[in-house]
Amino acid sequence: MPDDAKPPFARVSLIGLGLIGSSIARAVRETMADVHLTGFDADTGVRERARALGFADAIAESAADAVAEADLVILCVPVGSMAAAASAIAGALPADAVVSDVGSSKASVAATLREALPNATIVPAHPVAGTENSGPEAGFASLFQGRWCILTPDAEADPQAVERLQDFWTRMGAKVERMDAKHHDMVLAVTSHLPHLIAFTIVGTASDLEGVTESEVIKYSAGGFRDFTRIAASDPTMWRDIFLTNRDAVLDMLQRFSEDLSLLQRAIRWGEGDTLFDLFTRTRAIRRSIIEQGQDDARPDFGRKHS
Amino acid sequence: MPDDAKPPFARVSLIGLGLIGSSIARAVRETMADVHLTGFDADTGVRERARALGFADAIAESAADAVAEADLVILCVPVGSMAAAASAIAGALPADAVVSDVGSSKASVAATLREALPNATIVPAHPVAGTENSGPEAGFASLFQGRWCILTPDAEADPQAVERLQDFWTRMGAKVERMDAKHHDMVLAVTSHLPHLIAFTIVGTASDLEGVTESEVIKYSAGGFRDFTRIAASDPTMWRDIFLTNRDAVLDMLQRFSEDLSLLQRAIRWGEGDTLFDLFTRTRAIRRSIIEQGQDDARPDFGRKHS
Repeated sequence: MPDDAKPPFARVSLIGLGLIGSSIARAVRETMADVHLTGFDADTGVRERARALGFADAIAESAADAVAEADLVILCVPVGSMAAAASAIAGALPADAVVSDVGSSKASVAATLREALPNATIVPAHPVAGTENSGPEAGFASLFQGRWCILTPDAEADPQAVERLQDFWTRMGAKVERMDAKHHDMVLAVTSHLPHLIAFTIVGTASDLEGVTESEVIKYSAGGFRDFTRIAASDPTMWRDIFLTNRDAVLDMLQRFSEDLSLLQRAIRWGEGDTLFDLFTRTRAIRRSIIEQGQDDARPDFGRKHS
Repeated sequence: MPDDAKPPFARVSLIGLGLIGSSIARAVRETMADVHLTGFDADTGVRERARALGFADAIAESAADAVAEADLVILCVPVGSMAAAASAIAGALPADAVVSDVGSSKASVAATLREALPNATIVPAHPVAGTENSGPEAGFASLFQGRWCILTPDAEADPQAVERLQDFWTRMGAKVERMDAKHHDMVLAVTSHLPHLIAFTIVGTASDLEGVTESEVIKYSAGGFRDFTRIAASDPTMWRDIFLTNRDAVLDMLQRFSEDLSLLQRAIRWGEGDTLFDLFTRTRAIRRSIIEQGQDDARPDFGRKHS
């Protein structure tokens, strides 16, 4: 086997076996068959289910055991649990292991990892991919195909470790970009965190009305509402943690959104049709670009079944 | 052929041949083959394309010609064009024809139709179905399968005409509900109009940032943003008209949404994780109900392709 076909890591450890952790395991199995995979999850039930699903070579009974022989450790836990997960592996982590994560906010996670693992080789990462489902059963090998994975190494990061992690994600089908952690947090605040916050809000608003019943909301949801319920069904712990750790960027984007919404509110109140029409024409173009760049399904209605 | 298999109308006229009009034509072809279908669109180019697509028996050159022999006329035009469309057919409408429409706001449209067609048998309707695409090419026969069609006849409406229209929509696969027009407008304000307004707004906000480029927004849209771009790609004229004609209900829902958003904004600012977690847990349940009731695709991520 030529050297460039050798996987960049030989023993990979996944801490957290939910949607992302279990998808990485399955993707590694498909694309880097030689890699030895060890998994751990703080939840006993998840460990048992992961064993039954069989996507890893071994499921350890402690985080320390899971990482003891790893050359790559990926923390796949909610960002609010990163400190605990990092502390749990601190004593057992091999000196030459690379530590990474998959958290959706990066500046705060980077600081947390650095504090818990002061001597480790750390390369934070964020695969921009997922579904609304959670747990080890929800993962699948192609989740990262064609999606972006953003690495946010700091200035002191070991360039070789960054290269190896980039290779690792590329093999799983992801396109890799490097970015400053603070910039990442601003980009994701608008492309992911604000959309989720708005979706959670409107689903809450709709279920709290007195003049319209929840059963009516559900019945007639195909008018647009149902689109928001998908991301509003995402994991509550994961999303609470993201909003609390990327607070400043989320509040900034939210402020801008609220201002823009007020403008449209005023246009509706005063019957200013041109203001509405001009915006609605502009927003169409963005959809086209997203589809052209392969970031969404080109079929109408996301490819939903009709019949 | 038994009597109950006979279609409720023999000659159907469709004024407006975009996504909805052309979908009705195709659905009629599939489910009520004996019905004679005439179509008209104010746009010459659309008429030509409709002729080439061949989904109607005839494409007339004027609205008056299109309805001259109809027993059902459905106005499938943006709600802001209902007055003009109704006036155009007023002189040629057979006395016993039923007039309906497919508009997303109903109280205002009902008043418009009544004024333009004072002696006609009017039964307003709203099929809660669609995609983000527009035009005669975008329609398909199964669009209404399993979706709700809401009839909003007023107190004076001819019960037989209402029954026949209900039969018509049922044959195309829709589930039919009857509702007061004002209540319809409130229900749709929350299940359709507010979601669209919010989607248009956030897509606009995202494209106007100075710190994040539009190309970054597009690249990383799989984090949630892309879900909003689908409905924000909907027809600008149609949506401008909906907001202007269902103003009061939309502004009411928008006010409630803004209040709820402020609450979450405050929770993020002050690090109140429990407030966030409790809402995010509650919103999950609504998604489950929508799927259980067949109003969305049960597959993860709307059934999008992953690979």
